[in-house]
Amino acid sequence: MAKIAVIIADLFEDSEYTEPVAAFRKAGHEIVNVGLRAGQVVRGKKEGTEIAVGATPRQHPVGFYDALLIPGGYSPDKLRVDDDAVDFVREFMDKDKPVFTICHGPQIIITAKALEGRTLTGWKSIVQDIIYAGGTFVDREVVVDGNLVSSRSPRDLPAFIEACLAKLS
Amino acid sequence: MAKIAVIIADLFEDSEYTEPVAAFRKAGHEIVNVGLRAGQVVRGKKEGTEIAVGATPRQHPVGFYDALLIPGGYSPDKLRVDDDAVDFVREFMDKDKPVFTICHGPQIIITAKALEGRTLTGWKSIVQDIIYAGGTFVDREVVVDGNLVSSRSPRDLPAFIEACLAKLS
Repeated sequence: MAKIAVIIADLFEDSEYTEPVAAFRKAGHEIVNVGLRAGQVVRGKKEGTEIAVGATPRQHPVGFYDALLIPGGYSPDKLRVDDDAVDFVREFMDKDKPVFTICHGPQIIITAKALEGRTLTGWKSIVQDIIYAGGTFVDREVVVDGNLVSSRSPRDLPAFIEACLAKLS
Repeated sequence: MAKIAVIIADLFEDSEYTEPVAAFRKAGHEIVNVGLRAGQVVRGKKEGTEIAVGATPRQHPVGFYDALLIPGGYSPDKLRVDDDAVDFVREFMDKDKPVFTICHGPQIIITAKALEGRTLTGWKSIVQDIIYAGGTFVDREVVVDGNLVSSRSPRDLPAFIEACLAKLS
Protein backbone atom coordinates (compact mmCIF):
# COMPACT_ATOMS: atom_id res chain seq x y z
CA MET A 1 0.00 0.00 0.00
CA ALA A 2 1.20 3.51 -0.77
CA LYS A 3 1.93 6.49 1.47
CA ILE A 4 0.50 9.56 -0.27
CA ALA A 5 1.43 13.17 0.53
CA VAL A 6 -1.43 15.62 -0.07
CA ILE A 7 -0.03 19.14 -0.30
CA ILE A 8 -2.64 21.57 0.91
CA ALA A 9 -3.31 25.15 2.05
CA ASP A 10 -6.36 27.36 2.64
CA LEU A 11 -9.02 27.79 -0.07
CA PHE A 12 -8.50 24.31 -1.55
CA GLU A 13 -11.33 22.97 -3.70
CA ASP A 14 -13.09 20.80 -1.10
CA SER A 15 -14.10 17.86 -3.29
CA GLU A 16 -10.67 17.66 -4.92
CA TYR A 17 -9.33 16.78 -1.47
CA THR A 18 -12.21 14.80 0.05
CA GLU A 19 -13.10 12.51 -2.86
CA PRO A 20 -9.62 11.28 -3.90
CA VAL A 21 -8.57 10.94 -0.24
CA ALA A 22 -11.67 8.85 0.59
CA ALA A 23 -11.01 6.62 -2.43
CA PHE A 24 -7.29 6.24 -1.62
CA ARG A 25 -8.05 5.31 2.01
CA LYS A 26 -10.73 2.86 0.91
CA ALA A 27 -8.11 1.17 -1.29
CA GLY A 28 -5.86 0.85 1.78
CA HIS A 29 -3.43 3.72 1.09
CA GLU A 30 -2.14 6.05 3.80
CA ILE A 31 -2.59 9.84 3.61
CA VAL A 32 -0.29 12.52 5.07
CA ASN A 33 -1.52 16.13 4.82
CA VAL A 34 1.52 18.27 4.01
CA GLY A 35 1.25 22.02 4.56
CA LEU A 36 3.09 25.18 5.46
CA ARG A 37 2.82 24.74 9.28
CA ALA A 38 2.39 21.44 11.18
CA GLY A 39 -0.80 21.46 13.26
CA GLN A 40 -2.34 24.24 11.15
CA VAL A 41 -5.99 23.72 10.18
CA VAL A 42 -6.70 24.69 6.56
CA ARG A 43 -10.18 25.33 5.17
CA GLY A 44 -11.83 24.54 1.86
CA LYS A 45 -13.05 27.27 -0.49
CA LYS A 46 -16.68 26.28 -1.02
CA GLU A 47 -17.72 24.05 1.88
CA GLY A 48 -15.21 25.07 4.54
CA THR A 49 -13.93 21.49 4.98
CA GLU A 50 -11.32 21.57 7.76
CA ILE A 51 -8.08 19.60 7.34
CA ALA A 52 -5.28 19.36 9.92
CA VAL A 53 -1.79 19.64 8.46
CA GLY A 54 0.25 16.64 9.63
CA ALA A 55 3.71 17.50 8.32
CA THR A 56 5.65 20.29 6.62
CA PRO A 57 7.49 19.66 3.34
CA ARG A 58 10.84 19.41 5.20
CA GLN A 59 9.61 17.12 7.98
CA HIS A 60 10.06 13.92 5.96
CA PRO A 61 12.22 13.42 2.87
CA VAL A 62 10.34 12.84 -0.38
CA GLY A 63 11.62 9.24 -0.16
CA PHE A 64 9.21 8.76 2.77
CA TYR A 65 6.26 9.03 0.34
CA ASP A 66 5.16 6.99 -2.68
CA ALA A 67 3.01 9.60 -4.42
CA LEU A 68 1.81 13.22 -4.29
CA LEU A 69 -1.71 14.65 -4.66
CA ILE A 70 -2.12 18.39 -5.41
CA PRO A 71 -5.78 19.44 -4.99
CA GLY A 72 -6.85 22.66 -6.73
CA GLY A 73 -8.78 25.76 -5.77
CA TYR A 74 -6.56 28.60 -4.54
CA SER A 75 -4.44 26.30 -2.35
CA PRO A 76 -1.66 25.92 -5.00
CA ASP A 77 -1.39 29.73 -5.26
CA LYS A 78 -0.74 29.89 -1.50
CA LEU A 79 1.74 26.98 -1.54
CA ARG A 80 3.84 28.19 -4.48
CA VAL A 81 5.20 31.20 -2.57
CA ASP A 82 6.95 28.78 -0.17
CA ASP A 83 10.36 27.52 -1.34
CA ASP A 84 10.13 24.29 0.68
CA ALA A 85 6.75 23.43 -0.84
CA VAL A 86 8.04 24.14 -4.35
CA ASP A 87 11.20 22.06 -3.77
CA PHE A 88 9.05 19.21 -2.40
CA VAL A 89 6.92 19.14 -5.56
CA ARG A 90 9.99 19.45 -7.82
CA GLU A 91 11.59 16.42 -6.17
CA PHE A 92 8.54 14.21 -6.81
CA MET A 93 8.75 15.24 -10.47
CA ASP A 94 12.54 14.79 -10.67
CA LYS A 95 12.33 11.34 -9.04
CA ASP A 96 9.49 10.30 -11.36
CA LYS A 97 7.18 9.48 -8.45
CA PRO A 98 3.43 9.58 -9.17
CA VAL A 99 2.05 13.14 -9.07
CA PHE A 100 -1.73 13.64 -9.21
CA THR A 101 -2.82 17.19 -10.09
CA ILE A 102 -6.25 18.68 -10.72
CA CYS A 103 -7.64 22.17 -11.45
CA HIS A 104 -5.05 24.81 -10.35
CA GLY A 105 -2.61 22.10 -9.15
CA PRO A 106 -0.17 22.60 -12.08
CA GLN A 107 0.58 26.15 -10.82
CA ILE A 108 3.02 24.85 -8.21
CA ILE A 109 4.66 22.53 -10.77
CA ILE A 110 5.16 25.59 -13.00
CA THR A 111 6.90 27.43 -10.14
CA ALA A 112 9.06 24.30 -9.71
CA LYS A 113 9.96 24.61 -13.43
CA ALA A 114 9.08 20.93 -13.87
CA LEU A 115 6.43 21.04 -16.63
CA GLU A 116 8.73 21.45 -19.64
CA GLY A 117 7.99 18.78 -22.24
CA ARG A 118 5.10 17.30 -20.25
CA THR A 119 1.54 16.70 -21.48
CA LEU A 120 -1.30 17.51 -19.10
CA THR A 121 -4.63 19.16 -18.43
CA GLY A 122 -5.84 21.62 -15.79
CA TRP A 123 -8.36 24.38 -15.05
CA LYS A 124 -8.98 26.65 -18.02
CA SER A 125 -7.70 29.81 -16.30
CA ILE A 126 -4.15 28.39 -16.32
CA VAL A 127 -4.01 27.03 -19.89
CA GLN A 128 -1.71 29.79 -21.17
CA ASP A 129 0.52 29.46 -18.07
CA ILE A 130 0.95 25.74 -18.85
CA ILE A 131 1.81 26.45 -22.49
CA TYR A 132 4.34 29.18 -21.58
CA ALA A 133 5.88 26.74 -19.06
CA GLY A 134 6.64 24.34 -21.91
CA GLY A 135 3.75 21.96 -21.29
CA THR A 136 1.33 20.61 -23.88
CA PHE A 137 -2.25 21.30 -22.79
CA VAL A 138 -4.93 18.71 -23.61
CA ASP A 139 -8.62 19.44 -22.94
CA ARG A 140 -9.65 16.00 -21.62
CA GLU A 141 -11.10 14.71 -18.33
CA VAL A 142 -7.90 12.91 -17.45
CA VAL A 143 -4.42 12.86 -18.99
CA VAL A 144 -1.73 10.36 -17.99
CA ASP A 145 1.85 11.24 -19.02
CA GLY A 146 4.31 8.95 -17.27
CA ASN A 147 4.23 9.74 -13.54
CA LEU A 148 1.87 12.69 -14.06
CA VAL A 149 -1.92 12.23 -13.82
CA SER A 150 -3.99 15.40 -14.39
CA SER A 151 -7.62 16.50 -14.58
CA ARG A 152 -9.47 19.80 -15.10
CA SER A 153 -12.12 20.23 -12.40
CA PRO A 154 -14.37 18.46 -9.83
CA ARG A 155 -16.52 17.15 -12.71
CA ASP A 156 -13.57 14.99 -13.78
CA LEU A 157 -13.10 13.39 -10.34
CA PRO A 158 -14.39 9.88 -11.19
CA ALA A 159 -11.95 9.52 -14.14
CA PHE A 160 -9.18 11.22 -12.16
CA ILE A 161 -9.53 8.89 -9.16
CA GLU A 162 -9.64 5.82 -11.40
CA ALA A 163 -6.42 6.86 -13.16
CA CYS A 164 -4.69 7.69 -9.85
CA LEU A 165 -5.62 4.31 -8.34
CA ALA A 166 -4.34 2.55 -11.47
CA LYS A 167 -1.00 4.38 -11.09
CA LEU A 168 -0.77 3.24 -7.42
CA SER A 169 -1.52 -0.42 -8.09
CA MET B 1 -10.04 64.01 -16.91
CA ALA B 2 -9.75 60.32 -17.72
CA LYS B 3 -12.36 57.58 -17.96
CA ILE B 4 -10.89 54.49 -16.27
CA ALA B 5 -12.17 50.93 -16.71
CA VAL B 6 -11.68 48.77 -13.61
CA ILE B 7 -11.95 45.11 -14.59
CA ILE B 8 -13.26 43.16 -11.63
CA ALA B 9 -14.76 39.85 -10.49
CA ASP B 10 -15.40 38.08 -7.17
CA LEU B 11 -12.61 37.66 -4.62
CA PHE B 12 -10.78 40.83 -5.63
CA GLU B 13 -8.31 42.22 -3.09
CA ASP B 14 -10.51 44.88 -1.48
CA SER B 15 -7.94 47.63 -0.93
CA GLU B 16 -6.52 47.22 -4.45
CA TYR B 17 -9.92 48.38 -5.71
CA THR B 18 -11.01 50.83 -3.03
CA GLU B 19 -7.81 52.84 -2.56
CA PRO B 20 -6.87 53.52 -6.21
CA VAL B 21 -10.52 54.19 -7.12
CA ALA B 22 -10.90 56.70 -4.26
CA ALA B 23 -7.68 58.45 -5.33
CA PHE B 24 -8.69 58.50 -9.01
CA ARG B 25 -12.13 59.96 -8.20
CA LYS B 26 -10.58 62.55 -5.89
CA ALA B 27 -8.39 63.64 -8.81
CA GLY B 28 -11.53 64.07 -10.93
CA HIS B 29 -11.33 60.89 -13.01
CA GLU B 30 -14.37 58.77 -13.86
CA ILE B 31 -14.58 55.05 -12.98
CA VAL B 32 -16.48 52.32 -14.87
CA ASN B 33 -16.58 48.88 -13.22
CA VAL B 34 -16.22 46.32 -16.01
CA GLY B 35 -17.18 42.71 -15.26
CA LEU B 36 -18.56 39.51 -16.66
CA ARG B 37 -22.27 40.45 -16.27
CA ALA B 38 -23.75 43.97 -16.15
CA GLY B 39 -25.61 44.57 -12.88
CA GLN B 40 -23.75 41.75 -11.12
CA VAL B 41 -22.48 42.58 -7.63
CA VAL B 42 -18.98 41.25 -6.98
CA ARG B 43 -17.45 40.85 -3.52
CA GLY B 44 -13.97 41.39 -2.15
CA LYS B 45 -11.88 38.56 -0.72
CA LYS B 46 -11.01 39.89 2.74
CA GLU B 47 -13.57 42.57 3.65
CA GLY B 48 -16.48 41.60 1.41
CA THR B 49 -16.58 45.03 -0.26
CA GLU B 50 -19.50 45.00 -2.72
CA ILE B 51 -19.06 46.51 -6.19
CA ALA B 52 -21.77 46.75 -8.87
CA VAL B 53 -20.59 45.91 -12.36
CA GLY B 54 -21.52 48.76 -14.68
CA ALA B 55 -20.54 47.36 -18.08
CA THR B 56 -19.30 44.19 -19.75
CA PRO B 57 -16.09 44.21 -21.80
CA ARG B 58 -18.11 44.29 -25.04
CA GLN B 59 -20.53 47.02 -23.98
CA HIS B 60 -18.18 49.86 -24.92
CA PRO B 61 -15.19 49.75 -27.27
CA VAL B 62 -11.78 50.13 -25.64
CA GLY B 63 -11.65 53.55 -27.33
CA PHE B 64 -14.37 54.67 -24.86
CA TYR B 65 -11.81 54.44 -22.01
CA ASP B 66 -8.52 56.22 -21.32
CA ALA B 67 -6.96 53.67 -18.95
CA LEU B 68 -7.43 50.25 -17.32
CA LEU B 69 -6.99 49.21 -13.67
CA ILE B 70 -6.66 45.48 -12.86
CA PRO B 71 -6.97 44.90 -9.07
CA GLY B 72 -5.55 41.64 -7.72
CA GLY B 73 -6.72 38.91 -5.37
CA TYR B 74 -8.43 36.02 -7.17
CA SER B 75 -10.46 38.32 -9.45
CA PRO B 76 -7.96 38.05 -12.38
CA ASP B 77 -8.17 34.22 -12.19
CA LYS B 78 -11.95 34.46 -12.63
CA LEU B 79 -11.73 37.04 -15.45
CA ARG B 80 -9.09 35.24 -17.53
CA VAL B 81 -11.42 32.35 -18.42
CA ASP B 82 -13.62 34.83 -20.33
CA ASP B 83 -12.55 35.54 -23.93
CA ASP B 84 -14.15 39.00 -23.99
CA ALA B 85 -12.34 40.05 -20.81
CA VAL B 86 -9.02 38.77 -22.19
CA ASP B 87 -9.56 40.53 -25.55
CA PHE B 88 -10.44 43.74 -23.69
CA VAL B 89 -7.16 43.68 -21.75
CA ARG B 90 -5.15 42.76 -24.86
CA GLU B 91 -6.55 45.74 -26.73
CA PHE B 92 -5.45 48.20 -24.00
CA MET B 93 -1.96 46.72 -24.26
CA ASP B 94 -1.96 46.70 -28.08
CA LYS B 95 -3.16 50.33 -28.21
CA ASP B 96 -0.56 51.40 -25.65
CA LYS B 97 -3.20 52.83 -23.31
CA PRO B 98 -2.27 53.08 -19.61
CA VAL B 99 -2.70 49.72 -17.81
CA PHE B 100 -2.38 49.65 -14.01
CA THR B 101 -1.84 46.17 -12.55
CA ILE B 102 -1.17 45.02 -8.98
CA CYS B 103 -0.77 41.65 -7.23
CA HIS B 104 -2.33 38.88 -9.42
CA GLY B 105 -3.34 41.42 -12.11
CA PRO B 106 -0.66 40.28 -14.60
CA GLN B 107 -2.36 36.86 -14.86
CA ILE B 108 -4.96 38.17 -17.31
CA ILE B 109 -2.25 39.98 -19.33
CA ILE B 110 -0.43 36.61 -19.57
CA THR B 111 -3.59 34.95 -20.93
CA ALA B 112 -3.79 37.84 -23.43
CA LYS B 113 -0.19 36.98 -24.47
CA ALA B 114 0.72 40.65 -24.06
CA LEU B 115 3.62 40.50 -21.56
CA GLU B 116 6.41 39.47 -23.94
CA GLY B 117 9.33 41.87 -23.65
CA ARG B 118 7.72 43.90 -20.87
CA THR B 119 9.23 44.77 -17.47
CA LEU B 120 6.95 44.57 -14.44
CA THR B 121 6.31 43.42 -10.92
CA GLY B 122 3.49 41.43 -9.30
CA TRP B 123 2.60 39.10 -6.41
CA LYS B 124 5.32 36.57 -5.67
CA SER B 125 3.17 33.53 -6.47
CA ILE B 126 3.13 34.50 -10.17
CA VAL B 127 6.81 35.40 -10.65
CA GLN B 128 7.61 32.26 -12.65
CA ASP B 129 4.45 32.71 -14.76
CA ILE B 130 5.61 36.23 -15.67
CA ILE B 131 9.09 34.99 -16.60
CA TYR B 132 7.72 32.12 -18.73
CA ALA B 133 5.39 34.64 -20.43
CA GLY B 134 8.45 36.57 -21.63
CA GLY B 135 8.30 39.34 -19.02
CA THR B 136 11.17 40.63 -16.92
CA PHE B 137 10.24 40.50 -13.23
CA VAL B 138 11.51 43.25 -10.93
CA ASP B 139 11.00 43.04 -7.15
CA ARG B 140 10.17 46.71 -6.49
CA GLU B 141 7.15 48.56 -5.04
CA VAL B 142 6.27 50.07 -8.40
CA VAL B 143 7.58 49.53 -11.92
CA VAL B 144 6.70 51.81 -14.84
CA ASP B 145 7.40 50.41 -18.34
CA GLY B 146 5.77 52.61 -20.99
CA ASN B 147 1.99 52.27 -20.62
CA LEU B 148 2.31 49.57 -17.93
CA VAL B 149 2.37 50.50 -14.22
CA SER B 150 2.71 47.55 -11.81
CA SER B 151 3.00 46.85 -8.09
CA ARG B 152 3.26 43.75 -5.87
CA SER B 153 0.69 43.95 -3.07
CA PRO B 154 -1.50 46.26 -0.92
CA ARG B 155 1.64 47.46 0.90
CA ASP B 156 2.76 49.12 -2.34
CA LEU B 157 -0.50 51.06 -2.83
CA PRO B 158 0.83 54.57 -2.02
CA ALA B 159 3.63 54.27 -4.61
CA PHE B 160 1.30 52.53 -7.07
CA ILE B 161 -1.38 55.23 -6.85
CA GLU B 162 1.20 58.00 -7.23
CA ALA B 163 2.62 56.38 -10.38
CA CYS B 164 -0.86 55.78 -11.84
CA LEU B 165 -1.91 59.40 -11.24
CA ALA B 166 1.31 60.61 -12.88
CA LYS B 167 0.51 58.47 -15.95
CA LEU B 168 -3.00 60.01 -16.12
CA SER B 169 -1.87 63.63 -15.87
